[in-house]
Amino acid sequence: MNKIEHIGIAVKNMEASNALFESLLGEGPYKTELVLSEGVKTSFFKTGPNKIELLEAQSPDSPIAKFIEKKGEGIHHIAFAVDDIEKEIKRLKDLGFKFVQETPKKGADQKRIVFLHPKSTNGVLIELCEDMEG
Amino acid sequence: MNKIEHIGIAVKNMEASNALFESLLGEGPYKTELVLSEGVKTSFFKTGPNKIELLEAQSPDSPIAKFIEKKGEGIHHIAFAVDDIEKEIKRLKDLGFKFVQETPKKGADQKRIVFLHPKSTNGVLIELCEDMEG
Repeated sequence: MNKIEHIGIAVKNMEASNALFESLLGEGPYKTELVLSEGVKTSFFKTGPNKIELLEAQSPDSPIAKFIEKKGEGIHHIAFAVDDIEKEIKRLKDLGFKFVQETPKKGADQKRIVFLHPKSTNGVLIELCEDMEG
Repeated sequence: MNKIEHIGIAVKNMEASNALFESLLGEGPYKTELVLSEGVKTSFFKTGPNKIELLEAQSPDSPIAKFIEKKGEGIHHIAFAVDDIEKEIKRLKDLGFKFVQETPKKGADQKRIVFLHPKSTNGVLIELCEDMEG
């Protein structure tokens, strides 16, 4: 794990939350992106070496819609940057960690991603992400 | 905001969670510390330029005990590193952000800290922290 790549925050209204996080962080989002496979719209803010990702559901059956229904708006996941995602999946599987799915898929912001199951990580939804550009 | 200084995670059993995060991050905590003013025991892990802080309640009326009672174990707050905490409090107050308390206090890991009220930040509890050593 090289660093916290980003923190994902579930929001109800992307426009209002973009304005809020622009005020908070002092700079607007550098990118917005639809991730059709997850049914979400995302926006990304830089904060030094890290990012904040806002996530807005695009349909009622999106995981983000379900998260907000259950827990309200707030922090949804932490993503750690890794160099070799397959190697890291193997290392963690061997240690007994469970994954939501074990095969990396394309995420937002040019990354290959997987999620660990929060039941094996103290209730925290953890994403591993490998840069596709690197 | 210079970077994500740390993410605070509320846990029920520090010993078990220390072992879990040591497996996850590949290295054990570099520090454990009692923060009497908050009624918590903390442990800190490095992940590149960022940290993970585990928080275990030391009494049933600690904010962490109440958080776990309401929401279960999981991510409790995000802390951003700032150079001048008073200046940042003033900037954010002028923009309409609310604080849990407006005067910085001593936090764990040699920091002066304040918390923004999650009602003004999309349900996310946000800490600002300034290094006391710097």
